[in-house]
Amino acid sequence: MAWKRKDLVSMQDTEAAEITEVLDTAESMKEIATREIKKVPTLRGKTIVNLFYEASTRTRTSFEIAGKWLSADVINFSGSGSSAEKGESFLDTAKNIEAMSPDVVVVRHKAPGGPALLAKHLKCSVINAGDGAHEHPTQALLDLLTIRQKKGHLEGLNVTIVGDITHSRVARSDIHAMRKMGMTVTVAGPPTLIPPACQDMGVKVSHRLEEAIAHADVIMMLRLQHERMTGGFIPSLREYSRVWGLTLDRLTHCRPDVLIMHPGPVNRGVELSPEVADSQYSVILDQVTNGVAVRMAVLYLLAGSRAA
Amino acid sequence: MAWKRKDLVSMQDTEAAEITEVLDTAESMKEIATREIKKVPTLRGKTIVNLFYEASTRTRTSFEIAGKWLSADVINFSGSGSSAEKGESFLDTAKNIEAMSPDVVVVRHKAPGGPALLAKHLKCSVINAGDGAHEHPTQALLDLLTIRQKKGHLEGLNVTIVGDITHSRVARSDIHAMRKMGMTVTVAGPPTLIPPACQDMGVKVSHRLEEAIAHADVIMMLRLQHERMTGGFIPSLREYSRVWGLTLDRLTHCRPDVLIMHPGPVNRGVELSPEVADSQYSVILDQVTNGVAVRMAVLYLLAGSRAA
Amino acid sequence: MAWKRKDLVSMQDTEAAEITEVLDTAESMKEIATREIKKVPTLRGKTIVNLFYEASTRTRTSFEIAGKWLSADVINFSGSGSSAEKGESFLDTAKNIEAMSPDVVVVRHKAPGGPALLAKHLKCSVINAGDGAHEHPTQALLDLLTIRQKKGHLEGLNVTIVGDITHSRVARSDIHAMRKMGMTVTVAGPPTLIPPACQDMGVKVSHRLEEAIAHADVIMMLRLQHERMTGGFIPSLREYSRVWGLTLDRLTHCRPDVLIMHPGPVNRGVELSPEVADSQYSVILDQVTNGVAVRMAVLYLLAGSRAA
Repeated sequence: MAWKRKDLVSMQDTEAAEITEVLDTAESMKEIATREIKKVPTLRGKTIVNLFYEASTRTRTSFEIAGKWLSADVINFSGSGSSAEKGESFLDTAKNIEAMSPDVVVVRHKAPGGPALLAKHLKCSVINAGDGAHEHPTQALLDLLTIRQKKGHLEGLNVTIVGDITHSRVARSDIHAMRKMGMTVTVAGPPTLIPPACQDMGVKVSHRLEEAIAHADVIMMLRLQHERMTGGFIPSLREYSRVWGLTLDRLTHCRPDVLIMHPGPVNRGVELSPEVADSQYSVILDQVTNGVAVRMAVLYLLAGSRAA
Repeated sequence: MAWKRKDLVSMQDTEAAEITEVLDTAESMKEIATREIKKVPTLRGKTIVNLFYEASTRTRTSFEIAGKWLSADVINFSGSGSSAEKGESFLDTAKNIEAMSPDVVVVRHKAPGGPALLAKHLKCSVINAGDGAHEHPTQALLDLLTIRQKKGHLEGLNVTIVGDITHSRVARSDIHAMRKMGMTVTVAGPPTLIPPACQDMGVKVSHRLEEAIAHADVIMMLRLQHERMTGGFIPSLREYSRVWGLTLDRLTHCRPDVLIMHPGPVNRGVELSPEVADSQYSVILDQVTNGVAVRMAVLYLLAGSRAA
Repeated sequence: MAWKRKDLVSMQDTEAAEITEVLDTAESMKEIATREIKKVPTLRGKTIVNLFYEASTRTRTSFEIAGKWLSADVINFSGSGSSAEKGESFLDTAKNIEAMSPDVVVVRHKAPGGPALLAKHLKCSVINAGDGAHEHPTQALLDLLTIRQKKGHLEGLNVTIVGDITHSRVARSDIHAMRKMGMTVTVAGPPTLIPPACQDMGVKVSHRLEEAIAHADVIMMLRLQHERMTGGFIPSLREYSRVWGLTLDRLTHCRPDVLIMHPGPVNRGVELSPEVADSQYSVILDQVTNGVAVRMAVLYLLAGSRAA
């Protein structure tokens, strides 16, 4: 048992042995989804609060399903329309929630470091479900689980992440996690969307898509956020798609067993052509399925196993 | 056992024997609502996702209560503030939800045929909870259950549906279902709100309220949607109400055992006078109660009984 | 057993023996929050509907957690985006919900008397979770529980309530409840925010903060609503804070064992300085914890014990 922490706040602060522990636990959780009765009593009597300050139905739903399959009580607490709008501070809201005795608070917030702040001040467990452009650790874990299932291992694999690296918490968490697992990471995208500090994270930088994906075992296509399209970062959507969009034609120069991944939601025709999204290379829906398993694993490790 | 389908998408595609199967099952479900402990383990370990792209608390709540009384896990997934707004296609969102292994997706969408599209592409069961002006099959089923309970049978009864037939998914589902059960259906309303294709559905058309309701066993008053009031379909709200509103005075020319129904929410003073809504003829709240029973029955038939 | 009522609508209509019954029940509920498995089967098979017409995540969450720990099914029914917006009356919406056979409806509504109206017309139990500036009875009960735990008793204690008394349902419920329990209540605030009828409720009125809090066992600081800040009730936020804000400096003239309470959410730096909010005098988070226990007690007394 490698897991001893109270919280899951970032991949940067998580060790390789802990990542392996989550992935191994998720493997055993995954089987539950295939049962006739998708329910185990593991977290019965535990309370999970989804504290989401940014709209997210996908991640919130994944955590909610994970919690309910483990028999926990899951409470959705939306930041909008709440006391936050009445002028209460983020920490005061969190401390109020803590006073209701939850076991785990799953938090999404636009402020980088928000979940770490809560982890420091709350006695209950805190899971970062995305904090601004900082990290999204359960996304990285589900990406690793998907790669490990398809490839059989992680170490030594070449991963290329394509798109808006600067604003992507997914890229940041993936890079930290993949580097720790001994993987080689290349990032590719327009220079305006690659942070200068990128090389300090131990990744290669490429500004040509064909070159970046030629030897990749895994290509992770990032979503082009709508706000980037009008923010002066790219000349035009059409231009971005022409230069950085992944098409079946471009895939012909890749390894025949390459995996195409995407954190969703996909902009079909922008970063991915519909044919690629639906191709045999795509494991995008496997990622979603693994998301529930990974979240079950994390909830179990934080709320179910540490007490024992 | 007549029910073999994976989905409930429309009344048009449902056979009379299947309708009877739902109604008979709903009868036995109805007793659960009267128990001290309103809970049966029938769907324990099953996951139901309410995927609502249009605001609806009433129908969503009815499905949520139905699912919870059957011990299922029920997840509400709202279309607004979700990945749909981030440019993801309806089918991609649905496929993402499917990847989280639900047993049933209950979908409301403004696009006619949306639920049918999901039923075709998803392996899990799909229930249409209203698709634009197309169909709302569980509403028709709860209407039939209510009529059968009050009248003892369905065949041979005269039903008159009054109001905005053109834009009503309730009317469309009711007409299909009632015709299959051997009932005679008359539709009545201003010519602008009666679709020309109506007679192809096997109904009589009337443009005079008194004539239309004189021999009815059941009068189904439709809600006048606010958007119709300003859309050039009717001269004025007052005029509509004067010509097509049901009052106690007008009821004096009806059968003494006539049933007044309404899919809700009621515009008191528009299509129904308050006295009629609260009269002994009104079975509007019975419809709501039966809605939970019918949805329990459908959830059970799709998710609980087929596997056995 | 003092509790025989179907509903909890106001503190004005609740008797001292009933208040004591809730507090005693809440004491035994409180222990559940400290268990490894926070779950008792008391309300299994009971259905609770949270019918909230005003945004409130805090109170709604407290009721939701209370219901789930008692194993009830809890359904959130938001007033916005619902049939209310389609022109349905409040009572019709409530009667529709009742037709779905809930055991308890928890209602928040901006109209004073709304919950009482429902209590009169619905067969199920109704709990007032705040009706305009009228009452918020479970808040008063959790305040009393907190005071009783800290002081050992209620009778004879001096409580000072500071701030916008006129618009505060918390103040109104507190005053009724505290007077019934034999406590002395002083209200203090700008003359524009103290209702003239205040003395009829048996409270003392003070227009000087220092005088009002000098002998208090408990100081209840009310939240200054944002809308008051611009409504001509106070000269300026800064002025209000300077005259009526509670600071550590001002606390030096109070009893050394004084309790500082606040119904939340706190405007730090307005009615309370951050130092006071976080001081050893503050029991604000105890109030939140006790809120869950009090709501469990009320749900149990209304839905679980009366039938036995």
